[in-house]
Amino acid sequence: MGELRKDPILGRWVIISTERSKRPDSFVKEKEKTEDDKDKCPFCEGREKMTPPEIYSLRVPNTKPDEPGWRVRVVPNKFPALNTETELEKRGYGVHDMMTSFGTHEVIIETPDHDRDIKDQTIDEISDVIRVLQYRVEELQKDERFRYILIFKNKGKEAGASIRHPHYQIIGLPITPKRVREELHGAEVYFKLKERCIFCDLIEQEKSWGERIIYENDGFISFCPYASRFPFEVWILPKDHSIDF
Amino acid sequence: MGELRKDPILGRWVIISTERSKRPDSFVKEKEKTEDDKDKCPFCEGREKMTPPEIYSLRVPNTKPDEPGWRVRVVPNKFPALNTETELEKRGYGVHDMMTSFGTHEVIIETPDHDRDIKDQTIDEISDVIRVLQYRVEELQKDERFRYILIFKNKGKEAGASIRHPHYQIIGLPITPKRVREELHGAEVYFKLKERCIFCDLIEQEKSWGERIIYENDGFISFCPYASRFPFEVWILPKDHSIDF
Repeated sequence: MGELRKDPILGRWVIISTERSKRPDSFVKEKEKTEDDKDKCPFCEGREKMTPPEIYSLRVPNTKPDEPGWRVRVVPNKFPALNTETELEKRGYGVHDMMTSFGTHEVIIETPDHDRDIKDQTIDEISDVIRVLQYRVEELQKDERFRYILIFKNKGKEAGASIRHPHYQIIGLPITPKRVREELHGAEVYFKLKERCIFCDLIEQEKSWGERIIYENDGFISFCPYASRFPFEVWILPKDHSIDF
Repeated sequence: MGELRKDPILGRWVIISTERSKRPDSFVKEKEKTEDDKDKCPFCEGREKMTPPEIYSLRVPNTKPDEPGWRVRVVPNKFPALNTETELEKRGYGVHDMMTSFGTHEVIIETPDHDRDIKDQTIDEISDVIRVLQYRVEELQKDERFRYILIFKNKGKEAGASIRHPHYQIIGLPITPKRVREELHGAEVYFKLKERCIFCDLIEQEKSWGERIIYENDGFISFCPYASRFPFEVWILPKDHSIDF
């Protein structure tokens, strides 16, 4: 079933997943991967039985779960990195620390249509997806065993997407990732030093320079960060000082 | 010329390099890249003028620099991430911290023969390469502006190697990378807690389990770490408790 293991030097937790090695394209070189096959896509309308039973969906009244008629559909990942059937248990193992692979790994299918990418979706359709993401995060937050909930989307083979049909993923973790702890710590150190929020200061700085801003409206600002790690890195920040969305 | 920029939240330095964007394969998708062309390889014997002038070489007596007759050859990277022609200077920039792109980026060409990969090289040839790496590190250590010297080798296009001819790279940095600081810190915390070296403890643990050891001789041990981040991750540690090689 896999487990979480702690790096004894860096203090970073790593997911050791036996399930995910069963994915059909593991260890296959890019050029040898089969092309995404629309005729067999498990996320398309009419193939609901190909995924695990759905957790949630937005659908036409009087249609049943795991049948056609949905607009947005949430299902468990078929090859989960973590799962909620495991009890959360922490153990020492020699000099090491480990934890059972408790957690959740959900897939949010944005649309029944294989080719309806975000650029083709209407504002209403995109709003539906965002509301479902928000709902799932709120549901998962009720379980105190989760320390961190991550939403992500891989788009394109280069980004690791094994299925082209538009979808997000949500992972609920029993630990706070090292990178997140570091961000919280960095913001706290800055606040102790300056008595100001670092994100608010960064927004002000970018607005005064005006060089790296991509888009701005009443609620949000997006820009390329000063110390980008890779080309085209973009941040989207809420302009109001608030701790969550 | 590029510069180093500090991430204001994580404290991580990022190299912003204008030179490297000039590399011929930047932003070209894998399948569009031209195949490595042996007839034009700048690292092959006889094409010494295609690289910047050599820094060092092991060669047949009475042959001249930048001419054939070498066994191992050290040249500056033609598209350096950092360079020593820049003065090391630190500046504030609004809320940010930056540093000029002082540093070094060298290429160690292991063999004059394009196809003579490490698996084909003799022990003597490999020893030559390692001695040259060691020599360059010792030379660079004499410059107090360097805080960290990194040796690495990209092999294969998947790993980012743009030239197939066997070569190492050395980067000398004016900062200690965040990851390295964290390793030093982690080892220190462990020592303060246990009054023992974490690396020595990890070697003992792996030897007692015997599950993850790949190879061991009098001087070294190699194993897959308990909390591997990716499949086939391998560590090679000296069995003697020593701070460097």
